[in-house]
Amino acid sequence: MSSAKPKVVIIGAGFGGLEAAKALKRAAADVIVIDRHNHHCFQPLLYQVATAALSPADIAWPIRHILRPQRNATVLMEEVQGIDPEKKVLHTQYGEITYDYLVIATGATHSYFGHDEWSKFAPGLKRIEDATRIRRSILIAFERAELTQDQEQQRRLLTFVIVGGGATGVEMAGAIADVAGQTLAADFRRIDPRSARIVLVEAGPRLLPTFPPSLSDYARRTLTRSGVEVRTDTLVTNCDANGVDLKNGRIDAGTVIWAAGIAPSPAVRWLNAEADRAGRVKVGPDLSVPGRPEIFVIGDTAAVVDSKGQPVPGIAPAAKQMGKYVGKLISARIAGRERQKPFRYMHLGELATIGRRAAVVKFGALELKGFLGWLFWSLAHIYFLIGLRNRFVVAFNWFWDYITFQRGARLITDVPDGK
Amino acid sequence: MSSAKPKVVIIGAGFGGLEAAKALKRAAADVIVIDRHNHHCFQPLLYQVATAALSPADIAWPIRHILRPQRNATVLMEEVQGIDPEKKVLHTQYGEITYDYLVIATGATHSYFGHDEWSKFAPGLKRIEDATRIRRSILIAFERAELTQDQEQQRRLLTFVIVGGGATGVEMAGAIADVAGQTLAADFRRIDPRSARIVLVEAGPRLLPTFPPSLSDYARRTLTRSGVEVRTDTLVTNCDANGVDLKNGRIDAGTVIWAAGIAPSPAVRWLNAEADRAGRVKVGPDLSVPGRPEIFVIGDTAAVVDSKGQPVPGIAPAAKQMGKYVGKLISARIAGRERQKPFRYMHLGELATIGRRAAVVKFGALELKGFLGWLFWSLAHIYFLIGLRNRFVVAFNWFWDYITFQRGARLITDVPDGK
Repeated sequence: MSSAKPKVVIIGAGFGGLEAAKALKRAAADVIVIDRHNHHCFQPLLYQVATAALSPADIAWPIRHILRPQRNATVLMEEVQGIDPEKKVLHTQYGEITYDYLVIATGATHSYFGHDEWSKFAPGLKRIEDATRIRRSILIAFERAELTQDQEQQRRLLTFVIVGGGATGVEMAGAIADVAGQTLAADFRRIDPRSARIVLVEAGPRLLPTFPPSLSDYARRTLTRSGVEVRTDTLVTNCDANGVDLKNGRIDAGTVIWAAGIAPSPAVRWLNAEADRAGRVKVGPDLSVPGRPEIFVIGDTAAVVDSKGQPVPGIAPAAKQMGKYVGKLISARIAGRERQKPFRYMHLGELATIGRRAAVVKFGALELKGFLGWLFWSLAHIYFLIGLRNRFVVAFNWFWDYITFQRGARLITDVPDGK
Repeated sequence: MSSAKPKVVIIGAGFGGLEAAKALKRAAADVIVIDRHNHHCFQPLLYQVATAALSPADIAWPIRHILRPQRNATVLMEEVQGIDPEKKVLHTQYGEITYDYLVIATGATHSYFGHDEWSKFAPGLKRIEDATRIRRSILIAFERAELTQDQEQQRRLLTFVIVGGGATGVEMAGAIADVAGQTLAADFRRIDPRSARIVLVEAGPRLLPTFPPSLSDYARRTLTRSGVEVRTDTLVTNCDANGVDLKNGRIDAGTVIWAAGIAPSPAVRWLNAEADRAGRVKVGPDLSVPGRPEIFVIGDTAAVVDSKGQPVPGIAPAAKQMGKYVGKLISARIAGRERQKPFRYMHLGELATIGRRAAVVKFGALELKGFLGWLFWSLAHIYFLIGLRNRFVVAFNWFWDYITFQRGARLITDVPDGK
């Protein structure tokens, strides 16, 4: 390795980190991409892995394969354990890595609002492992219900609570309703999967709070029609092994899924930089950390406001825009050109599915719902998937599910002993 | 549940168990199929999951979905913990299950020839979990080698030993050679995956001992050409965390895969029946346990000889034939007809792939090798997969791998902490 070239280290190969690396393609730099996983995960479709429609490999792709053609990029699978900004050094389990420029794109985890002990009972959905864990939990609930003679336990097992009425919560609730009402309907002998109770709990007054109210209403109506119990203005006060306590009651449930708060990954704490209430690092107009012009924070770990003073949402397009901006900025600086234009977020829109054949789309002035929204949603997601193969396989799986009402990935794997 | 009908309990939903259940389709019986897993696994393609070519869901299908149209069949996902043949009762973690007829089709695990402690270092390939574990281990070896600067450790990490030169061992060795030599070749910066050392160790004098010698020779030549070191007449005397000891030397290796001995599942021990040296239950001509005409043992758990006095091999077609025979026999008995014809095994043939574009096939008088053998092998396996969807997806994946040299399921998941 020639070490005359400046070294750009990117932590995290999510949407932001990958875009940053790609934008450095022509830079005379050594680009090092570090991630704990060997794969980039297409998070917007994780809920489909969690509900047995897709396989993990359909929405994940090896990072080093994505960056294979980029000769100045090296991918390392390891975990960063600390940052020393004074010495410009990262500590990992395999030693130290120096940097000239550092991009932190470590993403977010779930926030349990100070109750981290709930995570045991109410897993969130951020990584492939979370999705297979939730899939296992949903499918095992039906298997156990078929085994037990105890009606009360059966009812508990067949109750699914989803906490959080944003896009992920709505998509999970709709998909579980499809699993219970269609996929599994004829597969059991002692229970009727259609009797499953699916409750979507939201603390605020409406579902999909970032969408226009008309689309929120549509989502609520559609979910209700497919059997989901929607409870807005409802705060969860406790989670335990047997269900959740609400401000106004209790629901015994076999499966609780957390789709509520977002907390930035702990990586940013190592910087000791100023953070907002959610813990996201306050960055300058060029996304660098104040006082550290060589360190950038992007994606869900950064607190950024758009031109109207609104916080930039934690969605994939925002992370990608930040990654691209920072990659270009570093490229320019390495080439001796100083780029002064501050980062500007361009909001393209938002979309969310509500089970089979329904989705809501808000794209600029365009508002779609129902089947048309679902078609738009499907095409957009297939388009943004990485790799032609994954596009084919996902498209085929959706087509197949659509005509057969089946789901191809109903696997219970890695069941811990005694469960 | 009407309980006037006789109750047929089948333990295990592999090839044998499923065929038995299906053959009872028209019987006036309650058929209960019990399995620890929720899915039937197509074991002949497990090695492709282990080498990242296919996803687990491509070769597995929910048991209850397969038996969904069969109204007299109930599927229970639970583990049998004991059998009381006197009382005709099974003990499971969820209670007791009585039976009138019992079919034991619990399959086989690996035999480490009295050294069960080796299983920790040299996993075998029997279940979906084994395959994802081996996949993880192979892919992590390359990732670690890229991280370390220590050349000796690099060499160890990039050494793969496969113990056992039967079909599974040959297929694994060929596939790992493809992974190292083609799939990963351009993805790393600090190591050259093509320098990986792949050693196939066989205790006997030749590979694929059940095939004609000419095909064994062909397999050896083909593997050698793709870089695999084939060592016949070589006994493994010890396995540890860093490699294997051979009778004539030592190989330091990061990954050791066990594809040697077969041991029947412990289920048969509960019967206290007479067993052969390998531990398989000696059954009568109708596959029932001597003295227990209502208990049948089929597949890898039974010691059966064919009309020439040769032991019936532990392959899928044999298990299926036994399952079908027993299912029909029980059906006839329930209908009041006694079926006296003993079980007769019909040997159709055997096949094994040797990496990309090569396979050996022995089907009656037909012997194929090379590309033609590979085509035959591919078509046969797609034909026998369960479910149209899986056939499509597997065929598509093979086609894609074939033209791109890629593998679509290069995921490292569920990595234990600190590894």
